[in-house]
Amino acid sequence: MLSKNRIEAFSDGVIAIIITIMVFDLKIPELAEHFTDAELHKALWGIVPKLAAYTLSFIVVAIMWLNHHSLFDKIPHSTSKLVWYNAFLLFGMSLIPLPTAFLASHPFLPEASMLYGLVLGFTALGFTFLRAYAQGKAKLISYNQLVQRSNIIGTSLYLLSAPLAFVSVYLSFAIFIGIPLWYFLPDKFQK
Amino acid sequence: MLSKNRIEAFSDGVIAIIITIMVFDLKIPELAEHFTDAELHKALWGIVPKLAAYTLSFIVVAIMWLNHHSLFDKIPHSTSKLVWYNAFLLFGMSLIPLPTAFLASHPFLPEASMLYGLVLGFTALGFTFLRAYAQGKAKLISYNQLVQRSNIIGTSLYLLSAPLAFVSVYLSFAIFIGIPLWYFLPDKFQK
Amino acid sequence: MLSKNRIEAFSDGVIAIIITIMVFDLKIPELAEHFTDAELHKALWGIVPKLAAYTLSFIVVAIMWLNHHSLFDKIPHSTSKLVWYNAFLLFGMSLIPLPTAFLASHPFLPEASMLYGLVLGFTALGFTFLRAYAQGKAKLISYNQLVQRSNIIGTSLYLLSAPLAFVSVYLSFAIFIGIPLWYFLPDKFQK
Amino acid sequence: MLSKNRIEAFSDGVIAIIITIMVFDLKIPELAEHFTDAELHKALWGIVPKLAAYTLSFIVVAIMWLNHHSLFDKIPHSTSKLVWYNAFLLFGMSLIPLPTAFLASHPFLPEASMLYGLVLGFTALGFTFLRAYAQGKAKLISYNQLVQRSNIIGTSLYLLSAPLAFVSVYLSFAIFIGIPLWYFLPDKFQK
Repeated sequence: MLSKNRIEAFSDGVIAIIITIMVFDLKIPELAEHFTDAELHKALWGIVPKLAAYTLSFIVVAIMWLNHHSLFDKIPHSTSKLVWYNAFLLFGMSLIPLPTAFLASHPFLPEASMLYGLVLGFTALGFTFLRAYAQGKAKLISYNQLVQRSNIIGTSLYLLSAPLAFVSVYLSFAIFIGIPLWYFLPDKFQK
Repeated sequence: MLSKNRIEAFSDGVIAIIITIMVFDLKIPELAEHFTDAELHKALWGIVPKLAAYTLSFIVVAIMWLNHHSLFDKIPHSTSKLVWYNAFLLFGMSLIPLPTAFLASHPFLPEASMLYGLVLGFTALGFTFLRAYAQGKAKLISYNQLVQRSNIIGTSLYLLSAPLAFVSVYLSFAIFIGIPLWYFLPDKFQK
Repeated sequence: MLSKNRIEAFSDGVIAIIITIMVFDLKIPELAEHFTDAELHKALWGIVPKLAAYTLSFIVVAIMWLNHHSLFDKIPHSTSKLVWYNAFLLFGMSLIPLPTAFLASHPFLPEASMLYGLVLGFTALGFTFLRAYAQGKAKLISYNQLVQRSNIIGTSLYLLSAPLAFVSVYLSFAIFIGIPLWYFLPDKFQK
Repeated sequence: MLSKNRIEAFSDGVIAIIITIMVFDLKIPELAEHFTDAELHKALWGIVPKLAAYTLSFIVVAIMWLNHHSLFDKIPHSTSKLVWYNAFLLFGMSLIPLPTAFLASHPFLPEASMLYGLVLGFTALGFTFLRAYAQGKAKLISYNQLVQRSNIIGTSLYLLSAPLAFVSVYLSFAIFIGIPLWYFLPDKFQK
């Protein structure tokens, strides 16, 4: 039987790296040796939309860490399959910096929102599978229809945001911002 | 109820990554295949002002780690809100490498000191909010007016350094160096 | 006597960094200020073969983490030599991103498969040596011929994939994909 | 009083990041779209001297981790000053990738060996100060003249290698390789 602690510690390490290094990618572009005021201001203000994309992903990963935390707190011990469902989830999470950087560079490009929606949908799917396994066949935790339904809705919305981006990127943005907001509603934390 | 240990471990992971990778950003620029002595010496001496900026940020983040440590040592257990105040603080901290790199490249540019002051002020605000929550509504720790007043002064000084940089960057430098020095005064560690 | 926990925690940290940052290397190439649809689609589809290489290495490192986990779970305490065998293994693992990036950029170049096979063979050798030491002279764990034979076969196959790449890279690919698949066979987890 | 565990865990995190990401810096240079066999072989063989520099630094950092481990194992509790001596040491260690990358790019440049010797000497000085504090004023560990003398010799040799590089880089190389070898002499581990 695998110890649960090392899996939690390993996941914490991976999530800490993802959330931290992602923000590290945010850089002020190198200025030429002699730069004008206009070039300087362009470099400084260019950070603002990028900061928005990175802040959003930071919040999303922080929510995921909290969910991971609250799921594993209830799990009494690990199994080999749990390790693999967890690895699948961590793989999805480790991809998040990729569409974040792309969205930060091209905020109004539909393909950027599509990629962001697909990767977050894939990661939300990882959570749905992990919980389905833990509360289903493995009976590691008690069945919680409310949380699992919320996982399925989150996954569906993220995946829906991908085609919607070609209608209007603002529809995708509404989903990207709405889902984290939903997690801040007070009763969510009683679960 | 959330376990305090995983929050501490996660925060330690995030802070360890910030403090370490920041220094990693410090590189000797690639030399051309055939370089002159002058190019070599320019590359080597160019490290000195950068090293100063990175050393300063290393000390600042180390002090923050120590403060985080000493705050969480007194907290008996975690709450959901504490996790979010902590995430807000870690977000601020993870931004520190951004103005550090900019200050390292353009030490005498007022905008670089402004950005450094704003990000450190934002992070110091994170500490102020975290302590205000923990000692206020949540009553997790006993009220410590001295430490909180020092947090508020630190936040104000950092935020003040941003406009001051346009008067003289040396005023900002005095604040950037003065605040860490203040933490080394012996009686600070009795808290 | 060295405590086993700090070695496990240190190894977990190193492996978490390897597995996470490797995927971070996967980036959509910077697009020019004004790009055509063709350039955009080339950039997006160019991710697919790279994603394949990174996914493969993610799975390989996850299996290694699981093996490391299951080996150290049985070890009662550490020794100085164990630390060095472990460091040798971690060194091999920390090299994995190098051939992964090269294979991702040049999937059909025999030299890329050769390098991938050599580094993974070197790492598998690290596992073989670590177990040989732990179950041999040090008598830290009981002798397990089955697992050690599987380590030796894995090492040999990876090393064999290097020259085979010059016959056909598909032979190397078969080995790279076959070995992880072998670890998913159900009975492997009973060990 | 500060808990010793969080300092050990934090140090382990920092050292794990240093040792892992340093090797990550080792990359095969990007090849042009259409490359010749000569360009490919130059890129592949160019890795060999770099690998030597990274391997050396990996071993040096691994030895430092082991020394840190063995020092903190004997320390009963932490103090504020110990945290700062430890931070000084970690700062030195986090600089190691800088001269490693420079030495890897320019192995026979005296300035590269000089920088490597200075940074390692600075780090060895960090160990000397940490132990001097712990066994001296703070009386955290019992006085061990043998280990401290070996720290002082190591520091002196590294600092000596900096001017020696201008006589011959091979003299510096002898010191860089000799010091780690010294740590592998069997009786060193009885301390």
